[in-house]
Amino acid sequence: MLDQRVLPRKEVWLELSQWEQVRDAIRDMAVRGAPAIGVSAAYGLALAAQQGDHDLTNARNGLASARPTAVNLVWALDRIMAIHELTFDAVLAEARAIEQEDLAMNHQIGLNGAPLVPDQAQVLTVCNTGSLATSGHGTALGIVRTAYSQGRLKHVWSCETRPRLQGLRLTAWELLQDGIPFHSIADSAAASLMRAGKVDFVVAGADRIAANGDSANKIGTYSLAVLAKHHGIPFVIAAPSSTLDPALTDGSAIPIEERDASELTDIEGVRVAPEGCPVYNPGFDVTPGELVTAIVTERGIHHAPYNFS
Amino acid sequence: MLDQRVLPRKEVWLELSQWEQVRDAIRDMAVRGAPAIGVSAAYGLALAAQQGDHDLTNARNGLASARPTAVNLVWALDRIMAIHELTFDAVLAEARAIEQEDLAMNHQIGLNGAPLVPDQAQVLTVCNTGSLATSGHGTALGIVRTAYSQGRLKHVWSCETRPRLQGLRLTAWELLQDGIPFHSIADSAAASLMRAGKVDFVVAGADRIAANGDSANKIGTYSLAVLAKHHGIPFVIAAPSSTLDPALTDGSAIPIEERDASELTDIEGVRVAPEGCPVYNPGFDVTPGELVTAIVTERGIHHAPYNFS
Repeated sequence: MLDQRVLPRKEVWLELSQWEQVRDAIRDMAVRGAPAIGVSAAYGLALAAQQGDHDLTNARNGLASARPTAVNLVWALDRIMAIHELTFDAVLAEARAIEQEDLAMNHQIGLNGAPLVPDQAQVLTVCNTGSLATSGHGTALGIVRTAYSQGRLKHVWSCETRPRLQGLRLTAWELLQDGIPFHSIADSAAASLMRAGKVDFVVAGADRIAANGDSANKIGTYSLAVLAKHHGIPFVIAAPSSTLDPALTDGSAIPIEERDASELTDIEGVRVAPEGCPVYNPGFDVTPGELVTAIVTERGIHHAPYNFS
Repeated sequence: MLDQRVLPRKEVWLELSQWEQVRDAIRDMAVRGAPAIGVSAAYGLALAAQQGDHDLTNARNGLASARPTAVNLVWALDRIMAIHELTFDAVLAEARAIEQEDLAMNHQIGLNGAPLVPDQAQVLTVCNTGSLATSGHGTALGIVRTAYSQGRLKHVWSCETRPRLQGLRLTAWELLQDGIPFHSIADSAAASLMRAGKVDFVVAGADRIAANGDSANKIGTYSLAVLAKHHGIPFVIAAPSSTLDPALTDGSAIPIEERDASELTDIEGVRVAPEGCPVYNPGFDVTPGELVTAIVTERGIHHAPYNFS
């Protein structure tokens, strides 16, 4: 597994041989991004099965507890648990299927969503929703990639995404590799770009989507949705159907992870805040469905009132 | 001069004996905050006069060029230049008067603005507008201080204020010293706090205020104003009258400083972004007057349509 915590400065590959290591890698964000978490957890169960565990309940619960917000984690684990006989071969085959299907879904999300991007658009996005967050291509960044390959997209504004800087570190890294024109910005600069008419389209990923379209995603996504509404700019969510949680009627029941204060107070190991500085550090927020112009999955383009079944 | 770039980790005092050093300290943000920049520039002219310069035009223009957005800089310089005879004694006396008047204005801003704070309010603020940004007490943070001393204010949400983290480094430092209850947050977390009903009042400083109330301030302030409007929360600007620029009919003519990419890409000397990452880094944005509930100066509480004369 590529350790995303030290990218882009270093390319460190982790060798994980036990499911507990996969749990820790998810919890500590060596791997992040809702679809990538799901795929990683599936392989975690394969490691448990390889070690002779044919029940997998303990490993399933341990992996499920690693992070609370992204439903893809539990979705992938429960898909494995539904296998009739939990042999290593069967679990590994299902994990590989989850990975391959996720890649295919992302390409379809790109094809489904690209027509929504206005011609020669400047597109604003947040966090990392690209190859690093998925099996490949990406969700919101998949739409960016497909729209760019179709000649529709002119330029990307990439929000740096405090506190973990997934935009500045990871999305910038992916966009540079693809040669897509972009600028990284402070999260707080999005509003004035919108007011200046320099944002035509906002696209974000999701970690869990309720039946009414309420969408949990990286902290700051809700802020962008309100700003897009104020400026009359389309705000689109892109996610595979594994991110849908239609059992939830709305977003109020989505668990919002609070992460450690040190994510804000220390940057790259350097203490920035004064000693004793209290911090509130939610990892996610919920954008109400009524602020979402469309939700793009591999199945198509969904509009309110949503019907994901 | 206390070097604000290394606070709160280190308390480094700079000894400045030439006006060019003051110019550099303003440009490189050893001192920042619109009122503090004005006061520092005034003392810069005193240093020039001390060195035998009795014309001061060159020093005035050099200091004026250090940063473009805050009008307090030019306001203070031109107040000095209006002195009949530019002797060292006269210039120093005027610089001291500017400093003392700024302190008095801040205390009056606090007294004028505190009654606007709802009882037991949770107040959100951005950047640093406290003692470090002024001659003392502060503007927006002056209102926070006065409201807290009056028992009106319950808790502060302090936006960290990327890219330079004046909130996380400086406002947190001041609030800790005063024992005012607060949490530092990522700038992008403000919206979800508002949606959760945990913000009753937003107060920010300003670097330049046009005749119609359009207010330039630290990047992200406009974002907070839109979010406050969406959530029905009062949004108040606090500034001394030296921040008013009634010669500008609106904010479109306010020069917005673009600062170096390294402010985003490098944090505390550590490279975070990938090599070659393009960055757009505006230091300020402009909040239109119609989003401002009130502007508080030492003269009183101003509402739209504004009349600052």
